[in-house]
Amino acid sequence: MIKKITSLGITTLLSIMLMSAHSFAGKVLLKVPVWFPTTLPALGTSPAWVAKNINAIGGDLSMKTYEPKKLVPPKEMLEAVSKGQVNAGYTTPGYNTGKLGDKGAIFSAVPFGPDAPEFLAWVYYGNGRTLWQKTYDDAGFNVQSIPCGIIAPETSGWFSKPIKKASDLKGLRMRFFGLGARVMEKLGVSTSQLPGGEIVPALQKGAIDATEFSMPAIDKRLGINKILKYNYFPGWHQPATLFDLIVNKDTWNDEMTEGQRTIVELACKAVMTDGLAMGESMQFDAMKANAEAGTENMYWSDEMLQTYSDKWDEVVAEAIEKDSGFKVIWDDLQAFRSNYKIWNEWAYLPRPGTKRK
Amino acid sequence: MIKKITSLGITTLLSIMLMSAHSFAGKVLLKVPVWFPTTLPALGTSPAWVAKNINAIGGDLSMKTYEPKKLVPPKEMLEAVSKGQVNAGYTTPGYNTGKLGDKGAIFSAVPFGPDAPEFLAWVYYGNGRTLWQKTYDDAGFNVQSIPCGIIAPETSGWFSKPIKKASDLKGLRMRFFGLGARVMEKLGVSTSQLPGGEIVPALQKGAIDATEFSMPAIDKRLGINKILKYNYFPGWHQPATLFDLIVNKDTWNDEMTEGQRTIVELACKAVMTDGLAMGESMQFDAMKANAEAGTENMYWSDEMLQTYSDKWDEVVAEAIEKDSGFKVIWDDLQAFRSNYKIWNEWAYLPRPGTKRK
Repeated sequence: MIKKITSLGITTLLSIMLMSAHSFAGKVLLKVPVWFPTTLPALGTSPAWVAKNINAIGGDLSMKTYEPKKLVPPKEMLEAVSKGQVNAGYTTPGYNTGKLGDKGAIFSAVPFGPDAPEFLAWVYYGNGRTLWQKTYDDAGFNVQSIPCGIIAPETSGWFSKPIKKASDLKGLRMRFFGLGARVMEKLGVSTSQLPGGEIVPALQKGAIDATEFSMPAIDKRLGINKILKYNYFPGWHQPATLFDLIVNKDTWNDEMTEGQRTIVELACKAVMTDGLAMGESMQFDAMKANAEAGTENMYWSDEMLQTYSDKWDEVVAEAIEKDSGFKVIWDDLQAFRSNYKIWNEWAYLPRPGTKRK
Repeated sequence: MIKKITSLGITTLLSIMLMSAHSFAGKVLLKVPVWFPTTLPALGTSPAWVAKNINAIGGDLSMKTYEPKKLVPPKEMLEAVSKGQVNAGYTTPGYNTGKLGDKGAIFSAVPFGPDAPEFLAWVYYGNGRTLWQKTYDDAGFNVQSIPCGIIAPETSGWFSKPIKKASDLKGLRMRFFGLGARVMEKLGVSTSQLPGGEIVPALQKGAIDATEFSMPAIDKRLGINKILKYNYFPGWHQPATLFDLIVNKDTWNDEMTEGQRTIVELACKAVMTDGLAMGESMQFDAMKANAEAGTENMYWSDEMLQTYSDKWDEVVAEAIEKDSGFKVIWDDLQAFRSNYKIWNEWAYLPRPGTKRK
């Protein structure tokens, strides 16, 4: 009897040791430096939400976010993840156009481009996600990109005085993001892509005259409304903005199990819903509060919108000229959009009151 | 030495036995009868997608879907889940208005109501989800509702001849869903809510004259386009439609761990993104194919849309009169919407070409 238990005991012991080893090997902690402070609604709360939910599952995958600059400065994030100095990061390709080319910004936001439902359709059920990943791959980065956040339209700028005609923009120094910045430059605006936290100080010092950053509730959090009075709509430059979680490819392919990858994919797809819902829910109170405190909400004139649209066409033509990779992505998106238009123009009721002067 | 291993072996053996017991206790299989065949895009593929992803995680939670009628007939699903005869089911409250009242249908789709981003904002960041759960609770059902799917607009009906004025509808026998059916009834239509698979046979037998079911790609899968020629847009009656996974509350609260509940919540929130993207991506090809095969895509005249809208106001007034619970939910949604409008009318560019005659 003793012998029997003993032999069973040894086998069991071996099993336990193997199980423990496996369980240790299977543990993955994703360390995620984030581009925006996790206090910023949607932009920053989204990766924190992903981490919180992954950790609530309580399995062998966990995630920890690190505020900007704490682990890796945002601008070095892509290279750090690619080299494995950190195993993940939360960003958007539009912040890495220096490394990916302007084409990267297509996966963040497209002027006069798709709104959230259409963008998600192209990403997940068109070629969007494949082209997005290919953009990192072709630029030589060893990262897996998981689309991981979306927000509804941004406002298209804060100014100290009304902008009635294109010439009113000439000579302005303005913070502007992504492909919209190329449009503004065509109109004589000198643009810079300051991080959120540096915008108000730059306005206070007079280093910039105007800025766009994000949605009313987010801009309000930064205090932009306290310095600039005129806030322009609609969000022609960013009808929807996408974000991604980038994971070092060796971590993704070799260290993570299918189950762990599934959890990350699910959490990132879930935060698309969550961030969109949050962004759509929190603007009206901010707009009302801003208006009460003196902000003038302005809607671009038809002429200004046409000017932006014409200049955007020029920007696209030049980007295609400069980079055949831009053309590949652009043509694919356009083919999708011209199909989608068939559905969009039939299925939906008109949006209310979008024409204001 | 032998003794040492033996004693260690026995302890280990005990641990293993305890661990196994715990691990068995922690294992949960959600058996999910579904309302739609899992071959139907978005409507049916969404719960299958949720199950596939939960199973891919490979932990102690798993899910299995059962085709309609295999485990529980759709119409008995809610009671079966509430009583614990099955531990879960995939449905939408609009299919259970006999038990929840017409107010339940508000959580499925609202005529002239919110589109997907606005609906999600109300559900997750307004009071939508709380009121949704309360509707089941107040009706005495022991279920936890997890919002678990959304689709973009549906088309508002297939007819054998063009409908130019309200009187053209009078006397028609039509399959119609949810609160839109109440509107059609006000216009002299006799409505029934046949399941998808029974629509084409009913049309063939002449038991009904017209039908709405879902989006072009889904209606095409059912073959409705082969029988009726005129397909009407826009989707005034269902600008977006929500679905839910209902789980027996004892299962949810007592048998499932926080980690398991988190996985279900994540998968259901993720399928919101997935179903929306899928629905938005697959209609244009179906519309083109239908048009080539003889379907006439029609856009309601302004007069007809106004008629539907006026009748909808009457339906709401009567529903409020009949059920104070309807009023509570309706008022909350209206308060949210009147705020959301501030944002919607400023932030978005107009939708293209929504006026067709």
